[in-house]
Amino acid sequence: MQNPPSLECWFEFGSNYSYLSVMRIEFLARDAGIPLVWKPFLLGPIFRDFGWESSPFVLQPAKGRYMWRDMEREAAKYDLPFRKPSVFPRLAVLPMRVAALGATEPWMGEFCRRVMRQNWVDDFDINAPHHVAAALEGLVADPQAILAAAQTDDNKLRLRGFTDEARDRGIFGAPTFFVGEEMFWGNDRLQDALAWAGRCAPASLL
Amino acid sequence: MQNPPSLECWFEFGSNYSYLSVMRIEFLARDAGIPLVWKPFLLGPIFRDFGWESSPFVLQPAKGRYMWRDMEREAAKYDLPFRKPSVFPRLAVLPMRVAALGATEPWMGEFCRRVMRQNWVDDFDINAPHHVAAALEGLVADPQAILAAAQTDDNKLRLRGFTDEARDRGIFGAPTFFVGEEMFWGNDRLQDALAWAGRCAPASLL
Repeated sequence: MQNPPSLECWFEFGSNYSYLSVMRIEFLARDAGIPLVWKPFLLGPIFRDFGWESSPFVLQPAKGRYMWRDMEREAAKYDLPFRKPSVFPRLAVLPMRVAALGATEPWMGEFCRRVMRQNWVDDFDINAPHHVAAALEGLVADPQAILAAAQTDDNKLRLRGFTDEARDRGIFGAPTFFVGEEMFWGNDRLQDALAWAGRCAPASLL
Repeated sequence: MQNPPSLECWFEFGSNYSYLSVMRIEFLARDAGIPLVWKPFLLGPIFRDFGWESSPFVLQPAKGRYMWRDMEREAAKYDLPFRKPSVFPRLAVLPMRVAALGATEPWMGEFCRRVMRQNWVDDFDINAPHHVAAALEGLVADPQAILAAAQTDDNKLRLRGFTDEARDRGIFGAPTFFVGEEMFWGNDRLQDALAWAGRCAPASLL
């Protein structure tokens, strides 16, 4: 018997539209009966491949101004709290390394939502070890041990591997969703990606 | 008594996501009781302001590959025919000048849908005078007279004026919708723009 198709969520803590998806996707996928696969990756190296030294929302001021207004409206649409961070885009290497380490762990979803809230609601420096530790509090037995494991060379390479895979698969922004080879870019396509996964499910599973 | 808020549709015949909106917007606005204001503008000068010599879908091949697949899916979602044009982005200065001339004319909507179909379904050179004339056929008494009027200096300046206004209002892509000062970028935001206009209508008109 075939497995149901899974939904891959490629995201970055520093990406504002990733916030809108990461806060919702675990619940939406669960309700739809679609297995969720977390795929944390770094957006910076992907942007640098295009010759961009920052986010397009910084490089194109008109687009940036629009994006912040759009974020207010979109967050309200999904009933998510939102406050424009005082720093954008925020460095997120440390929490991204924890996400790479924990991608298949049961605490991954809640950890990601906490880091996202720190960035997009609390305006915290999400790359600061004490904030990352706070996001792990109560989810793992020993947050400091997780931080240490996240910073090993092996785990740094794991996050780099995710980023290389993102590039190889043609990812150019975040969030991006995959259902098999079918790619969906942006929070605006999350529902389409879920619907696609639903249609791909073997009939015996529906 | 206040007028109901209008919905401005800023678009380009060469813009693929404009196709998805231009084919639908007149009917959606009419059904919602929202006055529609057509705002044709040239995207090329806006992109050149960013230092781009072509569409981002050409300059970023990964994004371009994704966009063509997304267009197939989106056109299917809206039940619109779609064929990837053999030339992208297509020059559209002549039909855009006709659109600038006819922006407030009753034939504007159907003319725009015909030019869009020529580009995104028939794969015609939409800048060729005979194709522009064909798109006017049956809508105006004398298509050749409209083509001549579209090419006067006054009308060239009218299109340039729309483009300057687009830049001044912070437009960075197409389609873009405005309801008063509220801006919505992309076909994905058309329903939100319509809903916004509906909420802004004076209660006496609802």
